[in-house]
Order: sequence, then structure tokens, then C-alpha cells
Amino acid sequence: MTPDLRHMDHALRLARRGLGNVWPNPAVGCVLVAVDRIVGRGWTQPGGRPHAERMALDMAGPAARGATAYVTLEPCAHHGRTPPCAEGLIHAGVARVATALTDPDPRVAGRGHAMLRAAGIEVTEGLRAQAAAALQGGFLSRVTRGRPMVTLKLATSFDGRIATATGESRWITGEAARRHVHLLRLMHDAVMVGAGTARADRPALNVRGFGPVRQPVRVVLANGAIPPLPHEDADHGPLWVLPGPPAEALAELGRRGITRVFCEGGGQLAAALLAEGLVDELVGHTAGVVLGGDGRAAVAPMELAALADAPRFRLAETRALGGDVLHRWVRKA
Amino acid sequence: MTPDLRHMDHALRLARRGLGNVWPNPAVGCVLVAVDRIVGRGWTQPGGRPHAERMALDMAGPAARGATAYVTLEPCAHHGRTPPCAEGLIHAGVARVATALTDPDPRVAGRGHAMLRAAGIEVTEGLRAQAAAALQGGFLSRVTRGRPMVTLKLATSFDGRIATATGESRWITGEAARRHVHLLRLMHDAVMVGAGTARADRPALNVRGFGPVRQPVRVVLANGAIPPLPHEDADHGPLWVLPGPPAEALAELGRRGITRVFCEGGGQLAAALLAEGLVDELVGHTAGVVLGGDGRAAVAPMELAALADAPRFRLAETRALGGDVLHRWVRKA
Repeated sequence: MTPDLRHMDHALRLARRGLGNVWPNPAVGCVLVAVDRIVGRGWTQPGGRPHAERMALDMAGPAARGATAYVTLEPCAHHGRTPPCAEGLIHAGVARVATALTDPDPRVAGRGHAMLRAAGIEVTEGLRAQAAAALQGGFLSRVTRGRPMVTLKLATSFDGRIATATGESRWITGEAARRHVHLLRLMHDAVMVGAGTARADRPALNVRGFGPVRQPVRVVLANGAIPPLPHEDADHGPLWVLPGPPAEALAELGRRGITRVFCEGGGQLAAALLAEGLVDELVGHTAGVVLGGDGRAAVAPMELAALADAPRFRLAETRALGGDVLHRWVRKA
Repeated sequence: MTPDLRHMDHALRLARRGLGNVWPNPAVGCVLVAVDRIVGRGWTQPGGRPHAERMALDMAGPAARGATAYVTLEPCAHHGRTPPCAEGLIHAGVARVATALTDPDPRVAGRGHAMLRAAGIEVTEGLRAQAAAALQGGFLSRVTRGRPMVTLKLATSFDGRIATATGESRWITGEAARRHVHLLRLMHDAVMVGAGTARADRPALNVRGFGPVRQPVRVVLANGAIPPLPHEDADHGPLWVLPGPPAEALAELGRRGITRVFCEGGGQLAAALLAEGLVDELVGHTAGVVLGGDGRAAVAPMELAALADAPRFRLAETRALGGDVLHRWVRKA
């Protein structure tokens, strides 16, 4: 692996720390390298500021002069609450900037790269573009499609059931899978359920077991009234009740700045999202228990006319998760 | 890892070659080691003869004198179609025999070990006992429980469906998973389906794509008539139609010498086997496609009163299988 790729991978790992914490901003990572020595590292901070580049430059101080900056997204070029990062890199005297992706935000969209080049800085684009697009997919989705990316999680029995015929569902999957759910909530901007789940389970929809964290927004898609859920407080994110249909609710979430939504069901909402092609990532937790065809299905009827009409996903990962199986899939393009 | 464990692992890998080929005999492996040099290797041959020890001794010839024999199961002590293997090891002059398990067959049951010791041979028992019990589980099941071990395979959509609401099922899983099914058939003595599947699909239930092989017995559990399936020939094993209930059919299979049964459904038979605790191993092939709650369920209704009554399995393996997920589970003791 070339040093360029190694340093960009490092920046991507740093970027990952921001997932779920930085909306409406992208989760970006930055590594500053001077003659093969890392002199600065940064990632987008909670709430979106400071940016990754600013954090890395502040750490490097004068050592940034002549260094190469590896950034997972094109540095911003517009004056917002803070001066643009492209300007910061120029003032710090970096010699070269390597980026993974162009920022599709119309306020940037190549202008960051152009500013750097105009200042005589060498710019290398497209380093680890695919990995960066996957990591920053929520932000890219919000900017280019006007809606957040959607991860749908279904925890089921071996035969795809979420409860027995009598409604018993605690616990199908084990402790490790349940903890993984909280990690996934933490890495998304919002957690979403349908009205039926909100009524039946009155779920807390917060992150537990990871210390004090920025709690995700709780979204309930409901056209009617829902019963009271826990109040917004340090342990619970804001509660937004949005009417359907799902595509419109997601567009509204995009307008409000949400980049990554974690949907935990129920079956009706899962079926609607899948049928409308709104699921970008599918996460399965499968337990070694069989509940039979009279158990409650994880996904409501979809009325598919043919197998070819069914939504298809590409396997991204599978591994043991405690006593259960984790399998993660991404939508086929 | 000690040399003893390493050699027994080798013998276990050899034993594995016999799975599906040697019923009513166990699939045994044997390695002969003289001063850390492998002088003979053997495994139970198709149809059950020669035994692994005989094969390894014939390969070693005079080099067996003073060697250690690693055998995955206690050498037989009874005169059958051939002289007992314990006798063979004694005559060859091996100095030591290491075994993984006592053979529960009442004609052996410790007598093999005793014969060896009486001849002045050092005997080490219980090496890799757990792995050997798993590998030779079909034979142990037939001897101790009077029925073969049962592997249930279900190839489903992400949400546990085996067909769309309209009955379309070709193809949910991919080429690699389908090829894996043929490998699994090859490694079992018999392939079993319920009457409904036999009627609806008229399946060939043979091994294809692995060259000329010993074809598994085809078993259909049916209380009534079934439509004609392909005839018994070089490409198709014998066809046995047995009446239910499943526990009695399995007992009959045990009486006929079958040690390993591979069940491929359908949903009614799967539910019956699971509900009666007759499934020893569960194999899932899960595809990245969602069919919805109106798709056909992989397992028929089981009328479980509570989650605690549901059959539970322990995860043994999960990995990608082409574009699908393979997950393998063994019954919790």
C-alpha cells in the first residue's frame, strides 16, 4: 500500500468518529503529514465545528508548513460560521492536499480544490473515493438526493420472525446484538420507527451503555396521535413526529439537516421503505431460534408481483455477534 | 499445539472424506507416525470397507512397526466381513494407539481399547474428543439414539421467505449457495423432503457437479402417494418413501443404516422436525433480497406457546457464500 493510501485510510478512520455526531455537516477526517511524520490529526467535532482540517492544523501549528494534508472530503470554500478550510490550509502553508471526494454542496462543488490550486498547492483528488463515498454517504445523500441515507435493522429468528404468535419477543437476539443496536443508534443522526411500533412498544429510542453521548433525534412516522414517549432530556434526543408517506418524511428530515437515519421497524414501515427503494443499508441480527410461520413477520406484506421486483442488496459483511449472526447489506446500484 | 493434537487433527481431516459415503459405518480417519514421520494414512472407504486403520497399515507396511496410530474412533474388536482393526494394529507391531472416542457400538464399546492394552500397546484415549464427536455424530446418533443425525437446510430471503406470494422461488440464493447444497448432499447418506415438496417440485435430490459420486438415498416422507420422481440409476440414489410421523421414519432410517440425513424442507416437515427436537444441525443460506410478509414462509406454523419453548441453536459458523450468507448452527444440548 502506498503512503498516500495509508494516510487516507487513517483519515477515513478518524472521519468515522463523527458519524451520528456532526449533522448537518459531513463527518470528515484529516491527517497532516510532513516528511512521513504525522504532525496533525483531526475530525469533525460534535455539532459540526470545528472542521477536521481546522483541528489538524491547530494540532500541527508551524509543522503544517510544507506538509501534505489528507482530507476525506474537499475542503470547504465558503465563509460560514468560520473561515473556509481551504483558506486555512493555504495560510498554514501546506504544500499538497490529497482528497477523496469533491463536496457536492453547491457552495463548495470544486471551489475548494480550485482555491487550493490557485494558491499554488498541489492537489490530488479521488484517493479512496469509494470508501469515502460509503463513509460520507449520509451527507452525500442529503445534498444530492435531498434525503438522508436510511439503514434498516431487523433482528429476527432464524426464520425471519420478530415475535411468537402470542407476541413474545424478549429476547430473540442476545446481549451482544442488543448492544450493537445502541452502537448503531449512536452512529446515526436519527432513530426512526413507525406508528405501530411507537404505540405497541413505546420505545425509548435512545443510546444506552456508552456514557454521555449526543443522543439521536427520535423520529416517529405517524399520521395519527402517538402515546407519550419519554421526554427530551439529556438521555433522550428531540422527538419529531412526522406524517407519511415515508419518502416525504425523509425529505423533511433532509431539510432539517439529518444525514443518517436508523430505522428499527416495525414491519409496516420496513415494507414501505423497502418497496419504495428507500433503504440504503440493511442490517440483520439473526438468532439461532426458530419460531415458525405463525410467528410475527419482520416485514409486512409487500405484494410483489415477481421475484425480479424484490429489492436486492449486496453483502457487505457477515460475522458472529455474540451468539447471533450479524449480516450487513448495501443496496444494489 | 502438541504433535499428538496435530496428528489427530490430520486424522480428523481424513475422516471427513468418508462423510456420506460409508454408511452404515462410521467415517474414520487414521494416521500412522513413526518418529515424527507419517508412514501411513487412511480413511474409511466408500461402502465402509476397508476401514481407515487397514488402509493406513497397508500403506505403511513394515514401517508400522513401533509407530503410533492416531485413530478418530476406537478400533473395532469384532470379526465382521474382515478381521478386527485392533488385531491388525497388534499384528503390525504398532507401539502406541491414540484415539478420540470410544466406539459406542455394543460389539466394540471398549473392547478394542482393551485388546490393544492386553497386547502391551500404549493407549491414549480422548484426544480431540469433541471434534471427533461432531464429525462422527451421525454414526454416534444411530448407535446411541437409534436414528441418524438430521441437518435441516433452509435457503431464504433476508426476511425468511422461500418464495414470493405468487410462488416464484428461482432463484432466491445464488450459484455458490446452490453448489454448496450439492456438496452438503454429497456429505450426507440420505436427502429427505416432505410429501408437499415432492408433489410441488418433483425434485431430483441428487448430487450434481461433483463428477461420479455415491449418490445419497432419496427419502420422501409421505403418508399418501407421491408423483413419479427420477428413477434409481447411476445419477440418482435409491428412492425410499416412508410414512410419518418423522420420528418413526428416522428410526426406520436408523435401522436401515443411515447415519446422516440432509433435509431440504418443505415448511411442514421442517416445522415438524423442529417442534419434535429432531434437528441436530441447522444450515441457513440467506440472500440479500426481501420478499415481504406475504411471501411463502420457510417454516410452517409451530404453535409455540412461549419463546422459551422455541428450539434454540448455537452458532457454529458464518461466512459469505458468493453473494449470500452461510450460517450454520448446532442444537443446544
